[in-house]
Amino acid sequence: MKPNFSLRLRIFNLNCWGIPYLSKHRGDRVKRLGDFLNMESFDLALLEEVWSEQDFQYLRQKLLPTYPAAHYFRSGVIGSGLCVFSKHPIQEFTQHVYTLNGYPYMIHHGDWFCGKAVGLLVLHLSGLVLNAYVTHLHAEYNRQKDIYLAHRVAQAWELAQFIHHTSKKADVVLLCGDLNLHPKDLGCRLLKEWTGLHDAYLETRDFKGSEEGCTMVPENCYVNQRELQSFPFGIRIDYVLYKAVSGFYISCKTLRTTTGRDPHSGTPLSDHEALMATLCVRHSPPQHTPSPTHGPAERSQLISVLKEAWAELDLGMAQARWWGTFAGYVIGLGLLLLALLCALAAGGGVREVAIMLWTPSVGLLLGAGAVYLFHVQEAKGLSRARAELQHMLGRAREAHDLDPESQAALFLGQQEGDRSEEQ
Amino acid sequence: MKPNFSLRLRIFNLNCWGIPYLSKHRGDRVKRLGDFLNMESFDLALLEEVWSEQDFQYLRQKLLPTYPAAHYFRSGVIGSGLCVFSKHPIQEFTQHVYTLNGYPYMIHHGDWFCGKAVGLLVLHLSGLVLNAYVTHLHAEYNRQKDIYLAHRVAQAWELAQFIHHTSKKADVVLLCGDLNLHPKDLGCRLLKEWTGLHDAYLETRDFKGSEEGCTMVPENCYVNQRELQSFPFGIRIDYVLYKAVSGFYISCKTLRTTTGRDPHSGTPLSDHEALMATLCVRHSPPQHTPSPTHGPAERSQLISVLKEAWAELDLGMAQARWWGTFAGYVIGLGLLLLALLCALAAGGGVREVAIMLWTPSVGLLLGAGAVYLFHVQEAKGLSRARAELQHMLGRAREAHDLDPESQAALFLGQQEGDRSEEQ
Repeated sequence: MKPNFSLRLRIFNLNCWGIPYLSKHRGDRVKRLGDFLNMESFDLALLEEVWSEQDFQYLRQKLLPTYPAAHYFRSGVIGSGLCVFSKHPIQEFTQHVYTLNGYPYMIHHGDWFCGKAVGLLVLHLSGLVLNAYVTHLHAEYNRQKDIYLAHRVAQAWELAQFIHHTSKKADVVLLCGDLNLHPKDLGCRLLKEWTGLHDAYLETRDFKGSEEGCTMVPENCYVNQRELQSFPFGIRIDYVLYKAVSGFYISCKTLRTTTGRDPHSGTPLSDHEALMATLCVRHSPPQHTPSPTHGPAERSQLISVLKEAWAELDLGMAQARWWGTFAGYVIGLGLLLLALLCALAAGGGVREVAIMLWTPSVGLLLGAGAVYLFHVQEAKGLSRARAELQHMLGRAREAHDLDPESQAALFLGQQEGDRSEEQ
Repeated sequence: MKPNFSLRLRIFNLNCWGIPYLSKHRGDRVKRLGDFLNMESFDLALLEEVWSEQDFQYLRQKLLPTYPAAHYFRSGVIGSGLCVFSKHPIQEFTQHVYTLNGYPYMIHHGDWFCGKAVGLLVLHLSGLVLNAYVTHLHAEYNRQKDIYLAHRVAQAWELAQFIHHTSKKADVVLLCGDLNLHPKDLGCRLLKEWTGLHDAYLETRDFKGSEEGCTMVPENCYVNQRELQSFPFGIRIDYVLYKAVSGFYISCKTLRTTTGRDPHSGTPLSDHEALMATLCVRHSPPQHTPSPTHGPAERSQLISVLKEAWAELDLGMAQARWWGTFAGYVIGLGLLLLALLCALAAGGGVREVAIMLWTPSVGLLLGAGAVYLFHVQEAKGLSRARAELQHMLGRAREAHDLDPESQAALFLGQQEGDRSEEQ
């Protein structure tokens, strides 16, 4: 690789809102998305919410001349909704399905059935190894009373861990997707602190697009305006994040978003806005050597966010256990009811009523059994993430304590951190 | 690191058969296992089938002075059963739960409820990065008619992919566990070909233990003798596998197994035999530089095993789809029955019978719905693994075709390979 090596990468990301039968003008939007991607000829287009595999196959055919490589990440009952189109050959791909992803009985929310995941692509570009990740985390349906918060934090941690462990030999790491997290949300901070990824919107000097980089904006006719009531400019939940390792330097030259309208015809491509980033990778000159990811100040921030995540997962575990116990009581009650009904049926008198009630009782018992098993599994999943967090927290603290420079930073951060201190 | 660097690693692996209430003499065996591990003071003890977290906590307390670091991998409803005890600090750990792991309605087999997984530990030993993996794949209940074969092959592939993607910067990779695979089984060959891991039993010059290195032997009083009827010496399904990368060389100095008896008191520690390996890691001298993992001959073998696995997963997918379609028909039938019952109930006459049959019909419908969803998910999981295999097969073939030396090897392997050629 030459010392003046430089690589320009044009990246496209969009949550396509492609729910069969439910999303408005889906066919037309997919067609126009294909035309747009063909015209723009990005290096990599990463898409979320392509729920119909037929849509992916349609795009694959349409984009074949411009993007010879493509992959659809299959998962869950419905599918992860994730897919990618690449101008460059894909060397390898794999995926990781999140352990926790909502509740099967929340059918109207549907996330559980999607098997939400993170997809990984390995690309070799001019001798440089690029690990590109695409993901979509659990949706947020009620920001004031978010019953999925612990699951989303656990997903953010699993995502961060997956990137951390699979990108150790990559030169450049890229993560695109709909995180369903606002920039200052716990999950987003956890992900960025643990992986060292940078946010294209915050890093670029050349941004054009929606106000404050929002990716769901009130101007978009497909957006439910009630959901954005508290956010006059909209919300930023879709991201292009990146970092370079091992002697490379990466910067975001330009970042563009759509602004609630199709770039050409005036009607939007989706209910989310598309992100279009131009990244530039080059050999790291001495003045650009990135600061150590885990210096005293960074370590202090990391400790603080790990503690916060630990506390959130702990709350989630208590909730999961409460539901498990509740389902356990219902099972006990169901068993008692069954025994009573058997006795009544044997004794005559209200025999017919007893026989009629027997089946719903068995149904209640089976339902409560399923809920019990689900929440036991949920508690185990949260406990697993909490154990990993706790271990890394311990290690970060050890490193922090060994470093004399850290003491002042630690002292400053202590007051805030104590709020969510583990027991 | 000095040029004459040398590191000796003593490894212990055992499937502990620790099923609460069902496994014989569990408490006594766990106690004796603790005593043995304390006495032998291995560098790393990797255990499977520790189903009770209380057993882990008991061992953790008992082993604390000798093995200060320990971790239990929580997963599924019951738990993965995997845990580790280490003499050295554990830098990081994480886990990956297999997408496919049997069927929830096969309650008597129970694997689905365990959430079987692979656990990863990262250790830093004298400046060397060791990635240690521990796993337990789906059990084989009937070798002649193995309904879990596709799942086990998919698990072996996921395991291989997880190791491949997470160990790129490790100096030494170690995998221990109960693979539930005989050495020549497809899953075992796939794992070894894709990761380049070596089998301690085949590599060591100093082996002492059970005949042919078997880890389930007829001499063991806890083993169901009928299961070993076709295997007079027993079966080898537990492994110590390893490899060194990036300028290191690893060899297995000694390998010991128990032989159906406790090393001291005469009664076995488990229904499986323990594996005890002494590995030696040193800087790779020129004469020991390992041959390229993917030379023409290796590539030809890899292509052959990838094709075989592809074909097996394809069969599994057809099976999953058949079950999905069958459940779909049952749903249709259930809906018809419900409509009929509603009509009968409204019309009078056999009203009571109709009302009584209504609830079981709803039960049938819900049951068939669950089976349908499960098999759709299963087909998606198998399809995901098949897509990854197909991609790697394509890449291996490309590399093979570009290499003139490969042509002869390809020609020789063609006849065999054609058997399982994809359509």
